[in-house]
Amino acid sequence: MEEHHGYSDHKSDLLKRLRRAEGQVRGVHRMIEEDTYCIDVLTQVSAATKALEKVALALLEDHLSHCVATAAKEGGDVAAEKLREASQAIARFVG
Amino acid sequence: MEEHHGYSDHKSDLLKRLRRAEGQVRGVHRMIEEDTYCIDVLTQVSAATKALEKVALALLEDHLSHCVATAAKEGGDVAAEKLREASQAIARFVG
Amino acid sequence: MEEHHGYSDHKSDLLKRLRRAEGQVRGVHRMIEEDTYCIDVLTQVSAATKALEKVALALLEDHLSHCVATAAKEGGDVAAEKLREASQAIARFVG
Amino acid sequence: MEEHHGYSDHKSDLLKRLRRAEGQVRGVHRMIEEDTYCIDVLTQVSAATKALEKVALALLEDHLSHCVATAAKEGGDVAAEKLREASQAIARFVG
Repeated sequence: MEEHHGYSDHKSDLLKRLRRAEGQVRGVHRMIEEDTYCIDVLTQVSAATKALEKVALALLEDHLSHCVATAAKEGGDVAAEKLREASQAIARFVG
Repeated sequence: MEEHHGYSDHKSDLLKRLRRAEGQVRGVHRMIEEDTYCIDVLTQVSAATKALEKVALALLEDHLSHCVATAAKEGGDVAAEKLREASQAIARFVG
Repeated sequence: MEEHHGYSDHKSDLLKRLRRAEGQVRGVHRMIEEDTYCIDVLTQVSAATKALEKVALALLEDHLSHCVATAAKEGGDVAAEKLREASQAIARFVG
Repeated sequence: MEEHHGYSDHKSDLLKRLRRAEGQVRGVHRMIEEDTYCIDVLTQVSAATKALEKVALALLEDHLSHCVATAAKEGGDVAAEKLREASQAIARFVG
């Protein structure tokens, strides 16, 4: 049996966003192969990075509103641990 | 009567972190006044930015473990709104 | 005839770095498909983002040391334009 | 005698930008002292961070168009070293 996570309810949404990022990364690959001007490649890398950040934010929002909210209702050590974990994940994207 | 927020319990910790950031921003000011070499000023600006990001992460962690956790226990529209608000605040730092 | 850009001399290095990013993005895809725990997916998204940032920095370094340096030697409007362009590209990654 | 750096010609511009950042950091301080709602403090921290990033970008642009351009004209090891240094400074803001 599969586990049920924060994003399970909109997995197809998440994969759609991710496919956009994958398409942009492929675009970067093609541009480098074709010797596209550096600045134009950089613009594309920037778009791919932003697309991945959107995937991260969607995952994080699902995680907070699902796993963290569930843990908060139960309280105690599990809740504290979930919050610490979420804060660390956020820190990795902010730093 | 003052409101009680996520960070109320470690306000002095938070102000201590913030004072570090303020000290680093003052350092940037002094370095520019004294015509310090650009790269060294940039290193100092980077330190000030990282110090501010740490203030943000501390605030966010307090907010999640306090306001959001409280709202999650109550559930409903208020919880959903708090989560949306927190996600937007995170997005402003990640973007 | 292909144009010669900043990264032409180490195109294979750049594509190698990019393939690492592509592998990590594929990892994210697989993890979502397999309902991996949100926080672990986020760690993988973060690794993919960092890998793309390394591609960007390598591109930028090549661009500065090649196109911008060449334009600087010539001076004038072209040099000023190249510098403005590079600064804008940097701003997109810092903002 | 003071050294002449990339930003010497618009030092007053740079200090003006910096004062904006300093004002915003003071705003964060006041808001925490006054127990302002976490999310509103975070919005202010985000504004302060963005203001500092603008100072960094202005410094970097001046540095590239002045010190790096001068070194590029001369070429050789000094130019290579200046470029490496600038790339590392950029990396600290992108990472």
